[in-house]
Amino acid sequence: MQRKGLIRVSIMLFVLTFIHITVYADAGQISDDTQECLDCHAIYHPGIVQDWKKSRHAVTTPKTAGKAKALSRRISSERIPGNLKNNIVGCAECHSLKARDHADTFEHNGHEIHVVVSPNDCAVCHSVEQEQFSMNIMSMAEKNLTENSLYQDLQKNILGTARLGKNHLEFMPADDLNRADACYHCHGTRLQVKGFKERETDVGELTFPIIDGWPNQGVGRVNTDGSRGTCSACHSRHQFSIETARKPYTCKQCHSGPDVPAFKVYSASKHGNIFNSQGQKWNYSSVPWEIGKDFKAPTCAVCHISLTINSDGEVINERTHQMSNRLGMRIFGLIYAHPQPKSPDTTIIRNTIGLPLPTDLDGKPSADYLISFEQVEIRREAMQKTCLACHSNSWVKNYFKRLDGNIAASNDAIRTATQQMQTIWHKGYARGLSNKGSIFDEYIERRWSDAWLLYANSIRFSSAMAGGGDYGVFENGRYHLSKTLMELQDWLDTREQLNK
Amino acid sequence: MQRKGLIRVSIMLFVLTFIHITVYADAGQISDDTQECLDCHAIYHPGIVQDWKKSRHAVTTPKTAGKAKALSRRISSERIPGNLKNNIVGCAECHSLKARDHADTFEHNGHEIHVVVSPNDCAVCHSVEQEQFSMNIMSMAEKNLTENSLYQDLQKNILGTARLGKNHLEFMPADDLNRADACYHCHGTRLQVKGFKERETDVGELTFPIIDGWPNQGVGRVNTDGSRGTCSACHSRHQFSIETARKPYTCKQCHSGPDVPAFKVYSASKHGNIFNSQGQKWNYSSVPWEIGKDFKAPTCAVCHISLTINSDGEVINERTHQMSNRLGMRIFGLIYAHPQPKSPDTTIIRNTIGLPLPTDLDGKPSADYLISFEQVEIRREAMQKTCLACHSNSWVKNYFKRLDGNIAASNDAIRTATQQMQTIWHKGYARGLSNKGSIFDEYIERRWSDAWLLYANSIRFSSAMAGGGDYGVFENGRYHLSKTLMELQDWLDTREQLNK
Amino acid sequence: MQRKGLIRVSIMLFVLTFIHITVYADAGQISDDTQECLDCHAIYHPGIVQDWKKSRHAVTTPKTAGKAKALSRRISSERIPGNLKNNIVGCAECHSLKARDHADTFEHNGHEIHVVVSPNDCAVCHSVEQEQFSMNIMSMAEKNLTENSLYQDLQKNILGTARLGKNHLEFMPADDLNRADACYHCHGTRLQVKGFKERETDVGELTFPIIDGWPNQGVGRVNTDGSRGTCSACHSRHQFSIETARKPYTCKQCHSGPDVPAFKVYSASKHGNIFNSQGQKWNYSSVPWEIGKDFKAPTCAVCHISLTINSDGEVINERTHQMSNRLGMRIFGLIYAHPQPKSPDTTIIRNTIGLPLPTDLDGKPSADYLISFEQVEIRREAMQKTCLACHSNSWVKNYFKRLDGNIAASNDAIRTATQQMQTIWHKGYARGLSNKGSIFDEYIERRWSDAWLLYANSIRFSSAMAGGGDYGVFENGRYHLSKTLMELQDWLDTREQLNK
Repeated sequence: MQRKGLIRVSIMLFVLTFIHITVYADAGQISDDTQECLDCHAIYHPGIVQDWKKSRHAVTTPKTAGKAKALSRRISSERIPGNLKNNIVGCAECHSLKARDHADTFEHNGHEIHVVVSPNDCAVCHSVEQEQFSMNIMSMAEKNLTENSLYQDLQKNILGTARLGKNHLEFMPADDLNRADACYHCHGTRLQVKGFKERETDVGELTFPIIDGWPNQGVGRVNTDGSRGTCSACHSRHQFSIETARKPYTCKQCHSGPDVPAFKVYSASKHGNIFNSQGQKWNYSSVPWEIGKDFKAPTCAVCHISLTINSDGEVINERTHQMSNRLGMRIFGLIYAHPQPKSPDTTIIRNTIGLPLPTDLDGKPSADYLISFEQVEIRREAMQKTCLACHSNSWVKNYFKRLDGNIAASNDAIRTATQQMQTIWHKGYARGLSNKGSIFDEYIERRWSDAWLLYANSIRFSSAMAGGGDYGVFENGRYHLSKTLMELQDWLDTREQLNK
Repeated sequence: MQRKGLIRVSIMLFVLTFIHITVYADAGQISDDTQECLDCHAIYHPGIVQDWKKSRHAVTTPKTAGKAKALSRRISSERIPGNLKNNIVGCAECHSLKARDHADTFEHNGHEIHVVVSPNDCAVCHSVEQEQFSMNIMSMAEKNLTENSLYQDLQKNILGTARLGKNHLEFMPADDLNRADACYHCHGTRLQVKGFKERETDVGELTFPIIDGWPNQGVGRVNTDGSRGTCSACHSRHQFSIETARKPYTCKQCHSGPDVPAFKVYSASKHGNIFNSQGQKWNYSSVPWEIGKDFKAPTCAVCHISLTINSDGEVINERTHQMSNRLGMRIFGLIYAHPQPKSPDTTIIRNTIGLPLPTDLDGKPSADYLISFEQVEIRREAMQKTCLACHSNSWVKNYFKRLDGNIAASNDAIRTATQQMQTIWHKGYARGLSNKGSIFDEYIERRWSDAWLLYANSIRFSSAMAGGGDYGVFENGRYHLSKTLMELQDWLDTREQLNK
Repeated sequence: MQRKGLIRVSIMLFVLTFIHITVYADAGQISDDTQECLDCHAIYHPGIVQDWKKSRHAVTTPKTAGKAKALSRRISSERIPGNLKNNIVGCAECHSLKARDHADTFEHNGHEIHVVVSPNDCAVCHSVEQEQFSMNIMSMAEKNLTENSLYQDLQKNILGTARLGKNHLEFMPADDLNRADACYHCHGTRLQVKGFKERETDVGELTFPIIDGWPNQGVGRVNTDGSRGTCSACHSRHQFSIETARKPYTCKQCHSGPDVPAFKVYSASKHGNIFNSQGQKWNYSSVPWEIGKDFKAPTCAVCHISLTINSDGEVINERTHQMSNRLGMRIFGLIYAHPQPKSPDTTIIRNTIGLPLPTDLDGKPSADYLISFEQVEIRREAMQKTCLACHSNSWVKNYFKRLDGNIAASNDAIRTATQQMQTIWHKGYARGLSNKGSIFDEYIERRWSDAWLLYANSIRFSSAMAGGGDYGVFENGRYHLSKTLMELQDWLDTREQLNK
């Protein structure tokens, strides 16, 4: 090894680094408005400012971002207003965008600022993503919960205030604070500007909006401009790191409970094992995302969202923020698994007895509102393109056959549980829907809901993501589902004996 | 890029590295005593010795450590004995310190060694931390459990040996082995020297102490010098890495069960997501700890313990090892959430009916023993200083308002459950406290304790750390709390019917 | 610092890197067969091919691997066939090995390929590991479940289809899809070739085998060559990374449910804390594995499998793939903890009343089939060699004494629960084994199985791996075990009252 060679190698490395930095940090200007924000907030909110400084937003202008080649582009809007195009994306660019649309806009040191940045704001540069997301069932998460009378009844009997009535408990609706703290933490709150208030601060008296439902980062949040959704639910502010969004911890924020144990199942799967063991060496930032090179096993984003390519640069799957594009069946059963709904707005669905449910009580799909089984197959094939990058055809086909077997079996168990419950209601041992009663406010009714909401769902998630034995059997799985059916029987037997 | 420039940069990097190493590894001597320890133990206990070699103790003398500027100082004692000052902190420095104070001191190859290093030993250099910790409720964890008759009854009925009596189970107190293996694993055991014993070793016959309760690293351990606490509970031996103590896995050791699910809630929170996704790039070792630069989202230590600064080097929060300094309410409810106790010794507390509980059975705080609500507010403001480094004022205030709403609602649910339970006791369907009975030894009583010990606590932890939907609702949260109240009602109804 | 010195250091670093690369990537050839595989599959299965390229197999020939010094050798076979010896280990080397032995062998572009690579294939180079694994109880995981009539009954009542019979539920055996998706996901399926089928592919019509039970990577899989086991269960294909196998996420795939919560307990232990906090800096690839240098705290592999050495290069523990070599007691109790079985085939075991269980119903070990307590002690001493590398003799001895206390206490609680259950059966309140009934198909029977399968097991895992308080008490531990006993009593009392 000669000294000259060493220096050559060193120079090469150095130049590569330099090029990288140069590409990344273009000559984009910080706007005067943003600079003014930074002057104060760097001191008062160092966490936010430093985090933003690490972001791509802080070093790239939309103009530069737009020049990237098709597959590498990180913005999707064709036309970006001139005043935004040439500055890096700072505080003012987002927080004073479309000021008139936001009910929380307030005068702040000569600027019109809104606290809540909405998908409509982000859409100025990321229009395709916003549009796709608006077709995603998540964007309707607040509405689908709030405007479904049956789900509201369930919610009331979970979150509400329990009062001792005569011989039974009565649940009063929960207040806004508790609703925001529970279901709507993930589903999203409805933000409402209740006025403006002056407050003494370190830099004198300032006015701020009073926003009911704030803070919140739920996926279906109703924003102060009327839009629905929250990009920062997954693209955590203010770094908005694609790396973070692509890691499974982001999804875990809302998908870890026994009703939707996606993260837990993934963690215990072979995919999760490889991610946990080797994932710290992967590249989570490249766009497009190359299978095999950038990562060795999928994270949630790989299968459900991301634009992926093979070693030849050919597209394996297109990017989508309408995640149901690759999902055929809805395995989160309320109360049965069924084909995905046609519309992200599920409040329009009615089953044959008029309940706002995607299936009848015996599991028959409310077909008018759901995609066809042909459509299920098409969406599955989209998903399977990713599987096939690492697995043989027979591996993948058998895998989905097993999932179907699992869906059939878990639906079947819920059918039995529901028959048991109907006997209990019929015999008057629980009140059920008769006399405008609730089907969620008595112990045995809640054991029935355990069966479909916790156990059947856990079993299906376990199957869908190859989480296997533990999550599908002993950890909220079949072991508990079968025991629940046995308890329903035991409870009924006791009532029968008591009433003999 | 000129070759000269490259070399200049390289030299700069090299020199910086060199300076770093120089500062870190001062000219401190290894004491002869420690060298003697190392000569044997490097072979017999390579794990310990190698771990210690990675520690700051192994490369710094107290003298050097003491020279650091105020905010950067890692030792707090003003005066350190001369014989310790100039040597790095090795085996002998700690394990033969204050030999006369330790009942487990034994003669070992010419040295007086004690096995158990106590907070009093560590206080020689870290006196402020030891003093703060002694005011921390954790330091009393053994006493507060052992000397509270009600908690002891609960413990007996959880850990004890079950015998079938006539028509009911009777629980005999658990033995020491099982106590140490369960509650006292975290609360800390009482170490007692039972004598000394000779044992044949590879280097001949040697004498060692026999210590009941050993090993243990619980936070409230009673040591062989009579002191309380265990620094190594969090500062894991023998690297005593501040990085480890600042990561949430340390807290997880004792704070992950459904009674105190801090780690689980954090993991599913936005903070936890950012830590898990980006945290491998952060600096966990710098003192003071700069918000935004060293880390982007808080770990447990950031909010509860650490000395943090902003980008201007101004202190955001002072270091404290009395963690309640930043905690207003005690959300771990036994049986209700309430203002923090005034004294870390909670055995002195009595409610209005003389029970050793911080509230009455209807939730009224035992005010004489608890801090005032004004004091609650002051402590909260200390905590909020950290929140405000990344969040707006309204974000933070609304967040705590929601926590208060949550505390009120969960306390309210426990009030209802307790009323149900009192009816059950009153009607004689369970024995309760009458005839010196236990309130924890019958099935329905334990369903009542599920309500407050597992579910209400989980709900409050979920709220306090923004763990949101899953941990506050379906995973040990409101879903289960409301179901438990329904079961209490169902059980009572059955008993009423049986006794008609 | 002189410029010359800088360059010298740089050169040294560069040369070291170069040497490393040279050693790792020997001059091994890719066989023509493998090259042919790669030509197509690099495009069709980029994930697999790229993953394999990162493997040691892709850069080393068996010949080179065999030259390593004893402790560093990664292959154990003394004689490797000449045609394999000099090529790196690629697609063809494994997937066309012993073609005649595999029922799934098919003609594929002129090659005889089998889909399923079995331990017998791997044994060509790794014979010692294969032989050890065949003595490991895991290799019999499929048989031990399938051919034990009592376990099959439990399985049927967990996985099976529930039908409403007259006054009770009846469970029909689960179908193959659901069995493969549940218990056999970890235990391993029985692979059976059902024929061959032509399929249109991108490169024309090709024939592939139809394999029932595929895909599966359970540890006890029955392969198409009749062998038992799956190396890729832990050595994930196609990187077969020792780093991955040595990290606890691999074990988590099957050891995280409440029946065997090894991973969860480890994560909450001090060892797990240190692994999670510091582990990203460790070396998981070196063979042998040096305690203190390569890692600071054990992962699962350190204690149960790996070849470890001390700082002097002396062996602390030999490598073993028969993991029971270091395990005295079987703490996974069915229904009691007991000394390890003598044979990995547990289907031969009978207790004194002829049931295929390792103990009587009162806990007395079926001694003829189990190792003696002397043997328990010998195996424990093997395990303790590892403990003693970081802990003192008294620490370790007391620790195991505590585990024994825990085993005695948890077995004792199960004895009480079983007495309660026997009373229930005796009085006819549940059917039990009478009239060929099942002991797992009624609610109260399943509460009894909760006691031993979920809670007593969790408690013992918690004790064995120092997971301490939370996992041993409130998270599926003693708190729930004692409550279960109380429910058994409560349930019996209710039945007594009903039948008075």
